[in-house]
Amino acid sequence: MSRSFNQPLGGNEMPRFGGPGTMFRLPSAPLSDDLDIAIVGVPLDIGTSNRSGSRFGPRSVRNESVLVRPYGMATRAAPFDSFQIADVGDVPLNTFNLKESIRIIEDYYDQLVSHDIKPLTVGGDHTIALPILRALKKKHGTMALIHVDAHADINDDMFGERECHGTIFRRALEEGLVDGNKMVQIGLRATGYSAEDFDWSRNQGVRVVQAEECWHKSLEPLMAEVRQRIGEETPVYLSFDIDGLDPSVAPGTGTPEPAGLTAAQGLEIIRGCWGTNVVGADLVEVSPPYDPSGNTSLLAANLLFEMLCSFPGCLRRD
Amino acid sequence: MSRSFNQPLGGNEMPRFGGPGTMFRLPSAPLSDDLDIAIVGVPLDIGTSNRSGSRFGPRSVRNESVLVRPYGMATRAAPFDSFQIADVGDVPLNTFNLKESIRIIEDYYDQLVSHDIKPLTVGGDHTIALPILRALKKKHGTMALIHVDAHADINDDMFGERECHGTIFRRALEEGLVDGNKMVQIGLRATGYSAEDFDWSRNQGVRVVQAEECWHKSLEPLMAEVRQRIGEETPVYLSFDIDGLDPSVAPGTGTPEPAGLTAAQGLEIIRGCWGTNVVGADLVEVSPPYDPSGNTSLLAANLLFEMLCSFPGCLRRD
Amino acid sequence: MSRSFNQPLGGNEMPRFGGPGTMFRLPSAPLSDDLDIAIVGVPLDIGTSNRSGSRFGPRSVRNESVLVRPYGMATRAAPFDSFQIADVGDVPLNTFNLKESIRIIEDYYDQLVSHDIKPLTVGGDHTIALPILRALKKKHGTMALIHVDAHADINDDMFGERECHGTIFRRALEEGLVDGNKMVQIGLRATGYSAEDFDWSRNQGVRVVQAEECWHKSLEPLMAEVRQRIGEETPVYLSFDIDGLDPSVAPGTGTPEPAGLTAAQGLEIIRGCWGTNVVGADLVEVSPPYDPSGNTSLLAANLLFEMLCSFPGCLRRD
Amino acid sequence: MSRSFNQPLGGNEMPRFGGPGTMFRLPSAPLSDDLDIAIVGVPLDIGTSNRSGSRFGPRSVRNESVLVRPYGMATRAAPFDSFQIADVGDVPLNTFNLKESIRIIEDYYDQLVSHDIKPLTVGGDHTIALPILRALKKKHGTMALIHVDAHADINDDMFGERECHGTIFRRALEEGLVDGNKMVQIGLRATGYSAEDFDWSRNQGVRVVQAEECWHKSLEPLMAEVRQRIGEETPVYLSFDIDGLDPSVAPGTGTPEPAGLTAAQGLEIIRGCWGTNVVGADLVEVSPPYDPSGNTSLLAANLLFEMLCSFPGCLRRD
Amino acid sequence: MSRSFNQPLGGNEMPRFGGPGTMFRLPSAPLSDDLDIAIVGVPLDIGTSNRSGSRFGPRSVRNESVLVRPYGMATRAAPFDSFQIADVGDVPLNTFNLKESIRIIEDYYDQLVSHDIKPLTVGGDHTIALPILRALKKKHGTMALIHVDAHADINDDMFGERECHGTIFRRALEEGLVDGNKMVQIGLRATGYSAEDFDWSRNQGVRVVQAEECWHKSLEPLMAEVRQRIGEETPVYLSFDIDGLDPSVAPGTGTPEPAGLTAAQGLEIIRGCWGTNVVGADLVEVSPPYDPSGNTSLLAANLLFEMLCSFPGCLRRD
Amino acid sequence: MSRSFNQPLGGNEMPRFGGPGTMFRLPSAPLSDDLDIAIVGVPLDIGTSNRSGSRFGPRSVRNESVLVRPYGMATRAAPFDSFQIADVGDVPLNTFNLKESIRIIEDYYDQLVSHDIKPLTVGGDHTIALPILRALKKKHGTMALIHVDAHADINDDMFGERECHGTIFRRALEEGLVDGNKMVQIGLRATGYSAEDFDWSRNQGVRVVQAEECWHKSLEPLMAEVRQRIGEETPVYLSFDIDGLDPSVAPGTGTPEPAGLTAAQGLEIIRGCWGTNVVGADLVEVSPPYDPSGNTSLLAANLLFEMLCSFPGCLRRD
Repeated sequence: MSRSFNQPLGGNEMPRFGGPGTMFRLPSAPLSDDLDIAIVGVPLDIGTSNRSGSRFGPRSVRNESVLVRPYGMATRAAPFDSFQIADVGDVPLNTFNLKESIRIIEDYYDQLVSHDIKPLTVGGDHTIALPILRALKKKHGTMALIHVDAHADINDDMFGERECHGTIFRRALEEGLVDGNKMVQIGLRATGYSAEDFDWSRNQGVRVVQAEECWHKSLEPLMAEVRQRIGEETPVYLSFDIDGLDPSVAPGTGTPEPAGLTAAQGLEIIRGCWGTNVVGADLVEVSPPYDPSGNTSLLAANLLFEMLCSFPGCLRRD
Repeated sequence: MSRSFNQPLGGNEMPRFGGPGTMFRLPSAPLSDDLDIAIVGVPLDIGTSNRSGSRFGPRSVRNESVLVRPYGMATRAAPFDSFQIADVGDVPLNTFNLKESIRIIEDYYDQLVSHDIKPLTVGGDHTIALPILRALKKKHGTMALIHVDAHADINDDMFGERECHGTIFRRALEEGLVDGNKMVQIGLRATGYSAEDFDWSRNQGVRVVQAEECWHKSLEPLMAEVRQRIGEETPVYLSFDIDGLDPSVAPGTGTPEPAGLTAAQGLEIIRGCWGTNVVGADLVEVSPPYDPSGNTSLLAANLLFEMLCSFPGCLRRD
Repeated sequence: MSRSFNQPLGGNEMPRFGGPGTMFRLPSAPLSDDLDIAIVGVPLDIGTSNRSGSRFGPRSVRNESVLVRPYGMATRAAPFDSFQIADVGDVPLNTFNLKESIRIIEDYYDQLVSHDIKPLTVGGDHTIALPILRALKKKHGTMALIHVDAHADINDDMFGERECHGTIFRRALEEGLVDGNKMVQIGLRATGYSAEDFDWSRNQGVRVVQAEECWHKSLEPLMAEVRQRIGEETPVYLSFDIDGLDPSVAPGTGTPEPAGLTAAQGLEIIRGCWGTNVVGADLVEVSPPYDPSGNTSLLAANLLFEMLCSFPGCLRRD
Repeated sequence: MSRSFNQPLGGNEMPRFGGPGTMFRLPSAPLSDDLDIAIVGVPLDIGTSNRSGSRFGPRSVRNESVLVRPYGMATRAAPFDSFQIADVGDVPLNTFNLKESIRIIEDYYDQLVSHDIKPLTVGGDHTIALPILRALKKKHGTMALIHVDAHADINDDMFGERECHGTIFRRALEEGLVDGNKMVQIGLRATGYSAEDFDWSRNQGVRVVQAEECWHKSLEPLMAEVRQRIGEETPVYLSFDIDGLDPSVAPGTGTPEPAGLTAAQGLEIIRGCWGTNVVGADLVEVSPPYDPSGNTSLLAANLLFEMLCSFPGCLRRD
Repeated sequence: MSRSFNQPLGGNEMPRFGGPGTMFRLPSAPLSDDLDIAIVGVPLDIGTSNRSGSRFGPRSVRNESVLVRPYGMATRAAPFDSFQIADVGDVPLNTFNLKESIRIIEDYYDQLVSHDIKPLTVGGDHTIALPILRALKKKHGTMALIHVDAHADINDDMFGERECHGTIFRRALEEGLVDGNKMVQIGLRATGYSAEDFDWSRNQGVRVVQAEECWHKSLEPLMAEVRQRIGEETPVYLSFDIDGLDPSVAPGTGTPEPAGLTAAQGLEIIRGCWGTNVVGADLVEVSPPYDPSGNTSLLAANLLFEMLCSFPGCLRRD
Repeated sequence: MSRSFNQPLGGNEMPRFGGPGTMFRLPSAPLSDDLDIAIVGVPLDIGTSNRSGSRFGPRSVRNESVLVRPYGMATRAAPFDSFQIADVGDVPLNTFNLKESIRIIEDYYDQLVSHDIKPLTVGGDHTIALPILRALKKKHGTMALIHVDAHADINDDMFGERECHGTIFRRALEEGLVDGNKMVQIGLRATGYSAEDFDWSRNQGVRVVQAEECWHKSLEPLMAEVRQRIGEETPVYLSFDIDGLDPSVAPGTGTPEPAGLTAAQGLEIIRGCWGTNVVGADLVEVSPPYDPSGNTSLLAANLLFEMLCSFPGCLRRD
């Protein structure tokens, strides 16, 4: 184990309620070739159609991430012994112009990719996944996609706009950013504009796992199926909308839908990505104003940690 | 499909955070023979014994119902293609006099029934189910009852009063509004005034399903049993106290009890009513002051939508 | 007194916690020549630079407006005996595109003006005042402006955008929508991008009243000065950003600044407009997610009522 | 100074966040001739017309009263060196029947009066003042009344009911419980059912002090006038609705109205009662569900303490 | 059944929102030989490493315990017919000195044990379990321990301190207060300072049940195993950190970790202790400031009730 | 103007809801001779006697400080053009040991003083002022003290401890850290352990300004008196407990007392220090868990900014 990697500030060096508000108490750093993985905040919420507030997602998730310690107790994963990771801060959006912000995000991730860094992103609304995928595609080509969400996000447009948090995966499929046959959508549920809404995904080859298929059981078998479908080599992007989980575990989000996944199932999905070739991941749609206890942000921080543990190459201690 | 039915205001015609605050963004309308189903608010909370606040239930559930879209994605049910449905507003209670309010409610539902409308009611506290059942009995005779709740609501009296939110189902059985042999109570739990409290129900022939019987599993088998017990023809009333669900999914209620049903189980119960002859339904005991995120109201709105999908005659798209 | 005017639903006809969620419990109505004053919601918050959430302002202010009764007890004003007033609902924005929404708003108010209706608007963020002023100018020419706010909103641009909640009054002055010599800005305070920020206004002839000038005293003398400056004939627009008031009275807003006006001073300003020729007014920047008690919305509803009382022609009972 | 009086549990004997939840950490005691003053809770909220929740007022005010220490630092008053005071608990209401509860309260206070105890009451909604006044009248005859409130509470009826929180002072005047010529109402404001609403009080001889008369100044001169009007001998009842104060200082209440009294003015009123013959007092309408910080209850506890200091005979330390 | 035992104040004698704020509405009483079980509050939170606030745990849990009725509906257990139980109040800590408070707690429990009373404790942070165990050991010798928690609490020190909420069970094992071979830790999860953190427990013979082992299933089989491991005679202490449960059911706690036990599993663990020789139990780490709905405290109250039902000798009604 | 000083990250470079969570968006930096003023967080709350939570004060005040811009609009002060200022982070306390933490703080400030840096501190509870004063005294000798607070903090001990948030200024006077004749305490009020509590201060020569002396008026005359008392040369320490202000403007604090100073008066005090020789200042007792809107932290950030503006040498733009 090389100790030259950045380490989180220890809980005995500084109380958890003190110290810098970076993710996992890691050092801040600029983008550079030294980094393996960059944790990026994208505080965008003008692509959201109902409750806003996810612009405060990055700050709040960072604040609550102080409770996350460096080792995963179930997986024995040791990401900070495995990768050079830093908190690279937030993308400087234009908060008054969605199109322009989408462009700024793509530019930022182009730069990130040029340093051969893998991004772990905290949103922000789900719109941000589209420019991230566009940038990643330039390096990795068409990717596999593991998409956790209450919604399919495959509207053709909303209010006539083609790029917002409800249309991104139609765009991603149309633009060849992701491969429908290597795409899975988990947690979809509730109500739609037509009874056939999710069938568009199915028609692109996507494996659609409605929430009902997940109730009352472990998702480990599902993830075995997913890994088989995707294979070990295909670059995989993991896009995790916190509203894929049940509002009881993640109340602080903009378009909650009842009867979603449990937190345990959320962890099973992320841990089940271990063994695939994850090249990037995001956690989106945390809206702190609807989360008075802070626990949605805390959950999000843990999910982000588990994502780190699923990047290929993460060591496991025995 | 006839498009002459009232349709919810679309999400692209008006942002979900704008537009009228009616249930499901449906038109408001008075009671009339044109309606198949009326959505009624009964903002009563003076029949409640612990935390008040459910007087704001109808307003809050309507506000959060803006997220509900017209089609059920699991059932492919299409209630707004099947029935003429409107939001008929609230019953004008006398908020200082419980007895008088009970009388006003019964009068209102007499009128509703006279138009041959089926009621879908949002409370208010559970007291309201008693005058509703009294009115419905005049048309349907003794009914079957599917009752979801943490409490049996079968006290003989409370503070000497015989009609309040904790006595209604004893009254309903005594008055022959519902048939004990075609009655099921699901989710009862926690603590009681005597260890034998629920046995009174059992002695009336009621199938009592304590929450413990529901833990860790699907309720689909239970609902198959319920459907068999009730049959396809018997008029069925569904009375759903949100506190039947676990406080984690429904924190905003007046007498929460730990270890209740999951939201998924709640949906399974309502969807499991499909195939019976539902003639009315209610969702009660949402107390918005105890629901800072609004998610209890949002859940309630979804449960009401699912109830619409379980009324006989609701089309399903394939 | 003609009783043919729309009247609020009475508190004894329907409890205040029940009934329709329209402003002041007035009837809903479309735009038409029958209306003297239209209450309009503009649920826009994508023009805001810090906390979002004012998209829920119109809904929340309407909800809390149920407590407002028809007569002003200090002024004895009787707006509902004086004008035909209705709640005309919300402007159907494009929530993903600020420029487009600004255009939609202007179109809407063009239409409103064409019916010779005076608008009373509830926001939404302050951006909305710009297209409203543009529409009103077409009818009224250059107007006087009474502007209550913590901020001058006279930036030249923000993130390169020239139309957002921080730039609107520079645009309004540049475009001749308002006359600097008949403009007053009350409540400005706190910190700025330069020490000279407010001097730009002063250089346009604007009377700038920093909050410090208001502390510890009645604003009636100030309003006498303002009325004299403006005169009785000049068309006046009143634009009231709730953050002009102190965060203690209006916590639910997006860019609060300490040591603002008291609620009493807010009322003095609005009541002090009586005697001028008010042709339109708005109340903006209420952000319900930051207002757990609902009292910011309740205050806003009262301020809107007082604005009604200050429209020319409002009867006063003696 | 006799130390035989009940003393609050000291802050160094038990941390303020521990120990019994009685008012001011005083001992609990039953009604008896030993008591000079009894602190009574009346957890009624079914007489309220808008937001409920004041049923939790007594519990919450007691909880927050732990911060109150035994001496008034401005008045140097020493109530616990002056009187035998105890927390006698709550009146056991019938929460489903307002009329019956009003009767229960009157019976309770009859008993209290029979022990020659002066009541200091914490509500509950304002309805409770009526049966208290009825009981006190039996001993003291027609009383003077100092009434702090946003509302006059002089409706003739509400929903046809003649006894609820909006009618009590019309009843009190009609029944001769209080003398209009020795009655003052302070803080009335906002909106009414008619412009002449408050004139009914004036016609009974009541000194009506609308909030506007109080803005921006000390109320000491007003209280000098009040003391002169009432004299030193007339039995005085002080009824303090927390909504007389501004919602910024007392957000947790059921029918808040903007631009009320400051906390300082509230203290000036209570301290200004010193020198009159106070025979009882209440603090009503604290609604804890609308008070997330607990500070409305804390303020209420302090106001109750100051009331103790204004009972005749309270020692002052020099 | 002897009715000479203390009984909770009935829900029809006094509304649940009124009456004394003791646990389960039981009488207060001092420590004495008359008691079988004493309910003790220990309002300590200076041993906590992240969010504070559990100092208000005892008060808040007592407040919410008013909803708990005297009989367990699943177990038909009747603790108030079985034992003399009272609320003995809070331990008078020194809130500025952790070491001193630990000493005070041990002294208090020494005294309690000397009366042959079994303690049921509500915290407060988990530090308090250490002095309790020390006192109990003097009577019972080395005990079995059933420990529910998200964390193992077996750090050697924190900030150089050896006694705080993260070190207590290492101390308890080192000091022979508990027997590693008769100890079980249930619910451990999330992240740690090293991947091997929990192995220290395992090396002491402890049965460590990580949360993952509990997901998606009943814990009844686990508890059968636990009972077998412990036997019927060994004195058992049950220490239940509310953060062992999932943050969705127990949001109000200081160091929440995602994907914990459900409330049902929590009940299964406590009910599964029936049949062992429980000599004391605690429920710790409820932090009310992070629990706006009060439901964490309500859950805690129910868990404490279920603990009463699992003390040996508790009658069950059939 | 030298632009070589650290500048806050601009609002157009990065949206205010994004970017680093440092105070005023300033750079982070270690202690060094380059700094004129260091902004220090001291996240201590184990010295507090009632509500805890101020351990999160530094983080929360930093988060809300993003709204503060670089220039004071009333004073035209330009602190970032005048001084080299940085956020030096938090003091690494031992959160389990108050005595030890007091020692750590003193050591930290010794070091700070050795670099000839002036400290601007954000707490944390008021205990922290004592070790800060001890360190500053080593450099400046006995200082003048301007102390804003609801409480005198001059207890001799609490629970036998001589150093906690209620004893510090007795210690400071006893140890000669501050000069009673050049000390003023502003805002003291409410209730005390004896009627003579504040007289101890007076007996040391302190000018005690109870809140009542401040009501309804400007504090500018008071501050003129204070400046005269202190003179221009004497080193002055400003210690500002947020609870000196009224709970309406600062609800998020641990021991709120009613009828305190307005925010305007708070600003007048700080601005009134201009002209004295301020050598250090603190803002303490912000408790974020009791501040759901975040506005107490936002106010605190503004007060800290104004303190910067009152350090001697701060430029004013004309």
